[in-house]
Amino acid sequence: MQEEKIERLIEMFRTLPGVGYKNAQRYAFSIIEGSEKRAKDFCEAITEAKSKIGFCKECGNFTDKEICTICSKRNRKIICVVKEPKDIISMEKVKNYDGVYHVLFGTISPLNNKGPDDIKIRELLARVSKDNVEEVIMATNPDVEGDATAMYIAKILKPLGVKVTRLAQGVAMGSDLEYADEVTLSRAMEARRTI
Amino acid sequence: MQEEKIERLIEMFRTLPGVGYKNAQRYAFSIIEGSEKRAKDFCEAITEAKSKIGFCKECGNFTDKEICTICSKRNRKIICVVKEPKDIISMEKVKNYDGVYHVLFGTISPLNNKGPDDIKIRELLARVSKDNVEEVIMATNPDVEGDATAMYIAKILKPLGVKVTRLAQGVAMGSDLEYADEVTLSRAMEARRTI
Repeated sequence: MQEEKIERLIEMFRTLPGVGYKNAQRYAFSIIEGSEKRAKDFCEAITEAKSKIGFCKECGNFTDKEICTICSKRNRKIICVVKEPKDIISMEKVKNYDGVYHVLFGTISPLNNKGPDDIKIRELLARVSKDNVEEVIMATNPDVEGDATAMYIAKILKPLGVKVTRLAQGVAMGSDLEYADEVTLSRAMEARRTI
Repeated sequence: MQEEKIERLIEMFRTLPGVGYKNAQRYAFSIIEGSEKRAKDFCEAITEAKSKIGFCKECGNFTDKEICTICSKRNRKIICVVKEPKDIISMEKVKNYDGVYHVLFGTISPLNNKGPDDIKIRELLARVSKDNVEEVIMATNPDVEGDATAMYIAKILKPLGVKVTRLAQGVAMGSDLEYADEVTLSRAMEARRTI
C-alpha cells in the first residue's frame, strides 16, 4: 500500500545506473523528508544540466558553450583520444596534461556491429590535419576493444607523420601483485624499465 | 575543468544518503546522456512527491490525502508502532498484517536530548483510547533506544488493559550463526521455543 506518488519517484531513481529498489527508496524518502528548497534546487539542477549542456563541436566533451573550456584554452597540438565524455574527467586528474581531447563516442566492436565509421575517427583525422597535431595519445580503455581501436587509429595516423602513443599498461599503484591478472602482469613485464 | 552546471548537478546528487562523488558523477552523466523526457519526468516526480506528499493526520505515514490508505481501510484495533514513516514500508512486507500503524517520529534517546514528550507518544495514547485498541505491537528497531522506547510505552499502556507485544528478536532467516553477534544469540536463546 505504497502511495502512488512515492512509487513514481522511486521508479525514477531506479533509472539511475546501479540503483536498486532499496537505494531508490532511500533517495526518494530523503527528497520527501528534505526541505522544499532542496527539491526545487534538485529540479533546477537537472533541468539546467539537461537543457544547457551539449557536446563540444570540436572534441565532443560536455559543455554549455559551443567550444568547451579545454578546447578553447589549451594546446591543440596534442590530442588525447578517449571513448566517452566522462573519460575526460578521469584523465583530467593528470594535472600536468595541457593538451586537448577527442571523444570517439564508442570503440570499434564487431560484436556490437560497430565499425570504424560508426565512431568519430573521421573527425579526429580532420582535426589532426587542420591543427597540425604532433601527438595523439590513445587513452581508450585497456581492454580488447580499446586496444583494437587504438591500433586501428595508429595505423591510419602513422603514415601522416603523427606520433601516436598509448597509455602505459602495467600493475596499478597501491594494488597487490597477488590480485593482478596474468594479462596485466605479462604486459607489465614486457614494458619493464631500468631503474 | 568541469563545467559548472555538471558540477552543480553532481553536488545535488551528493546530498542523497550514502552517495559519494563517484556515484553522484555517474548519476549526473546518466541524466545528461538520457532523453529530455526522462529529465522532465524526473523533475516532475520530485516536485509532485515533495508538494503533494504529507503526513497522515492519523498515523504519521506518508500520504497524499488527509488520512492514508492504510488508516482508512484497515483494522484500527491493532496498532503497530514504528520509529519512522519508512519503517511502515518494511513492515508492509508482512503480507497478512491487517492492522494500522503509528509513527513515533523518533525514539526516546537521552543522548540526543529526546525525551518521551519529543516523540508522538501522547498521540498514540489518544488513539488507543479513541479506537478501543486491543493490541499495540512495538516495532521500534531492535537496538538500545528502540528497546527502551518499547518498554516505556508498554509500561504506560498496560494499566489501560491493552495488550502490548514486541517483535520477536532472534537470528535472522538465511543468516549464518557464525556471524551473529552475542546479544542476538543470547536473545534467541532466551526466546527459544519447543518444536
